[in-house]
Amino acid sequence: MTEHEDVLELAGRSLRSRLLLGSGGAISPSSLTDAVLESGTGVVTVSMRRAGDGVANGLMEALAGLPVEILPNTSGCRTAREAVLVAELSREALGTDWVKLEVVADDRTLLPDVIELLDAAKALVDNGFHVLPYTGDDPVVARRLQDVGCAAVMPLGAPIGSGLGIRNPHAISLLREQVTVPVILDAGIGTASEAALAMELGCDAVLLATAVTRAERPVVMARAMRRGVEAGRLAHLAGRIPQRRLAQASSPLAGVLGS
Amino acid sequence: MTEHEDVLELAGRSLRSRLLLGSGGAISPSSLTDAVLESGTGVVTVSMRRAGDGVANGLMEALAGLPVEILPNTSGCRTAREAVLVAELSREALGTDWVKLEVVADDRTLLPDVIELLDAAKALVDNGFHVLPYTGDDPVVARRLQDVGCAAVMPLGAPIGSGLGIRNPHAISLLREQVTVPVILDAGIGTASEAALAMELGCDAVLLATAVTRAERPVVMARAMRRGVEAGRLAHLAGRIPQRRLAQASSPLAGVLGS
Amino acid sequence: MTEHEDVLELAGRSLRSRLLLGSGGAISPSSLTDAVLESGTGVVTVSMRRAGDGVANGLMEALAGLPVEILPNTSGCRTAREAVLVAELSREALGTDWVKLEVVADDRTLLPDVIELLDAAKALVDNGFHVLPYTGDDPVVARRLQDVGCAAVMPLGAPIGSGLGIRNPHAISLLREQVTVPVILDAGIGTASEAALAMELGCDAVLLATAVTRAERPVVMARAMRRGVEAGRLAHLAGRIPQRRLAQASSPLAGVLGS
Amino acid sequence: MTEHEDVLELAGRSLRSRLLLGSGGAISPSSLTDAVLESGTGVVTVSMRRAGDGVANGLMEALAGLPVEILPNTSGCRTAREAVLVAELSREALGTDWVKLEVVADDRTLLPDVIELLDAAKALVDNGFHVLPYTGDDPVVARRLQDVGCAAVMPLGAPIGSGLGIRNPHAISLLREQVTVPVILDAGIGTASEAALAMELGCDAVLLATAVTRAERPVVMARAMRRGVEAGRLAHLAGRIPQRRLAQASSPLAGVLGS
Repeated sequence: MTEHEDVLELAGRSLRSRLLLGSGGAISPSSLTDAVLESGTGVVTVSMRRAGDGVANGLMEALAGLPVEILPNTSGCRTAREAVLVAELSREALGTDWVKLEVVADDRTLLPDVIELLDAAKALVDNGFHVLPYTGDDPVVARRLQDVGCAAVMPLGAPIGSGLGIRNPHAISLLREQVTVPVILDAGIGTASEAALAMELGCDAVLLATAVTRAERPVVMARAMRRGVEAGRLAHLAGRIPQRRLAQASSPLAGVLGS
Repeated sequence: MTEHEDVLELAGRSLRSRLLLGSGGAISPSSLTDAVLESGTGVVTVSMRRAGDGVANGLMEALAGLPVEILPNTSGCRTAREAVLVAELSREALGTDWVKLEVVADDRTLLPDVIELLDAAKALVDNGFHVLPYTGDDPVVARRLQDVGCAAVMPLGAPIGSGLGIRNPHAISLLREQVTVPVILDAGIGTASEAALAMELGCDAVLLATAVTRAERPVVMARAMRRGVEAGRLAHLAGRIPQRRLAQASSPLAGVLGS
Repeated sequence: MTEHEDVLELAGRSLRSRLLLGSGGAISPSSLTDAVLESGTGVVTVSMRRAGDGVANGLMEALAGLPVEILPNTSGCRTAREAVLVAELSREALGTDWVKLEVVADDRTLLPDVIELLDAAKALVDNGFHVLPYTGDDPVVARRLQDVGCAAVMPLGAPIGSGLGIRNPHAISLLREQVTVPVILDAGIGTASEAALAMELGCDAVLLATAVTRAERPVVMARAMRRGVEAGRLAHLAGRIPQRRLAQASSPLAGVLGS
Repeated sequence: MTEHEDVLELAGRSLRSRLLLGSGGAISPSSLTDAVLESGTGVVTVSMRRAGDGVANGLMEALAGLPVEILPNTSGCRTAREAVLVAELSREALGTDWVKLEVVADDRTLLPDVIELLDAAKALVDNGFHVLPYTGDDPVVARRLQDVGCAAVMPLGAPIGSGLGIRNPHAISLLREQVTVPVILDAGIGTASEAALAMELGCDAVLLATAVTRAERPVVMARAMRRGVEAGRLAHLAGRIPQRRLAQASSPLAGVLGS
């Protein structure tokens, strides 16, 4: 398989890039578009609760000229009811039935409320949406989200914007085994090695926002993340060597070939 | 700065790739050359204690046709005296004054013996070599190696061939601050995210062998490592966001731009 | 405060020991009772789905002679309905309104199913039970469990019996801040330092079973866990020094007092 | 074996406590003596470069009344020559041939300079000292220290006073296997779980100073550390359960005994 054939099928789209970018934290529309282009992403998320302002400030206009799908999200919603409403409005406004579903419990942690999330996911699937839910790293909740018809699951690595990376690789690995829909690591990534790790754990894609938009040099970090996701995906496919506690000298044949 | 201008000056050479490849563990000369080409590396290490056999088996011949520098190493040496002898022989045989200096204490751990290492480094520098020593992650030893004139220092992440990654990022980070010569992480890397992490910690390059040569698909892993090193280097240059314990919602302006 | 005054108020009982012991995995009633006594625990959990067999084998009889409370659990239950039924039966059989509520999703991971768990918790609280639910490390679910009236929350450190310790200390720390009821770390602990860590993170108690019952020497490990829980509790109360990246030499006054 | 029989033979002494305490950082002689008594330690280290001041301030006098051995150290020394001199003076002043040998490279990291350290160790052993050297976590250097006759080796967990715990448990574990003399983890410990971990890794004892003397409540932390060291030692002796990636339900027999 070549790199070009490694396509991600997500909610009816075929994506060449396994990096999804959030627009949150961008300091200007132009810096965002530069980062989007450098990242190679095919999907950019946009907050619909702020869409009105966003349009006014040129965000939607700027994105409209790029070769990316817009993925509206329900960030800031606290209840299933509110999230469903925002999703419906975004479908009307943007003409897309994709939605990144976020239902958070509070502003301090921005952690998902999985009870409200499941309710909202079920309602939106029933209404014909392709639902991509932002969730915790609980494998059982992920399976339930799949069972109600979500198109993917998007577990967090750490709290949104924390830059703490993947706090529990073991849980992400278990979660990966519990579902057959795509797994997109969403939230917590701070640097490129963490994006690579997400892919090595078997995730199908990575979504991040402030790690790029708030880096000292967003465009350079966008390229770093692109490479990191590619690196992790390839390493996952390549089949890594096992871990050993002690050294492993070259084998006899290897010895012949030097070290 | 563009990616193309980010050149590593190492012992008198200018290297475009920050990935160095070891030939140990390769299952055939052709699989090695495929991996070398895919990795984009400009430097391949070869064990000189096995050079006779290596030539007989076509290793040196295969590498001779590639656009890479050969970096002879003294793997398997246990004393300064032995390592100096092997280095002298390799200079005669290959016509290069580069040497990757390895003096290990035992076969079980293959850990460097830093006392013998320092003695050998001093002797070889005095004899006109560009010395690149494989050492532990002790920042003080690294500074001593620089002080005797080494062209770089090559700390381990974990025992050779262990695939354990970087066991002590904190030590590598301190070591990086203690020297001004290039720091090349050497040994322990098992997968691409770890190569990226090495670069994010401020290392100038990564050297690895079995992580590629013994992966299930060496050529795919060679590409993964190439991307991983690029990702980590770019992330280091980009200036990552700080880590926070709690979530960081989009700022007001960011809010305007969605999330 | 002296150690003797540091009492845990849990579901109407005052406990001097902050270690709770599970009886699962014990190889005989006598080895269990030895471990229980050595651990200093005041609470032992017993599976009620197996109570009939347990009585037949002398478990309940053996425990009856010890200075401990029996905490019946609903291990093995897969639905809220089943767990409520088992809890009702256990109340009749043992005459206690305490219940450690377990509702797991599958046998491979034994992870809690938080949706069924919440339903069962609500029903049991309404029926007058003191409910101690085994849950994941999701802070928002923990708060919901508190909101429906649970007497404590019992997050896992890692899968039951895995011995992987606390996979996500950051999540446990956040969870601790989200609730005011006692937090009892339950599942995953393999050795004493991990029990200490749980307490340092602010947990009020630790529950473990196979880490003791399946250790090579269960009675010695019981004592180790007792000491580990005490150590962590004391360290939590003592107020640890901050972490610093670099060394911190003795201050001038400290210098006067040597190092 | 009972706890009372588990004696540490160190440089000719039999010690019941496996916790050694440093006096650095203490805010007053009385707070130090309270912490010493609570810790149960049998050995307290004192800086000899500051001994004159120390006496003047009552440190030595305060310690003289306690049931502890004084272990003079050479903290602050930068060269073998200086360390040997301080050791000789301390032997004269205190009438002990024990010495905790410290030779550091700089004030910023306080990391040991293993080259100078080995020279000093050799000289002091030749002069009849029982030498306990503060070293890095390099297993090969540890073996060399043993080979020149040191009575123990004292690897760091992290830089002195950093409170970072054991940065490289893997290295400490390898080091433990490389030597037969006692291994005393020295430096970096910040809290009780880390002291326990050191013992679980097979260390024979733990030495710490500011983790106790600079805690918010030094006496409470002294007790915490005492319990932590005991916990880790017992867990090491007890033989912990293996780690598993997935859950391990109770075995059939265990099932009979409940969970």
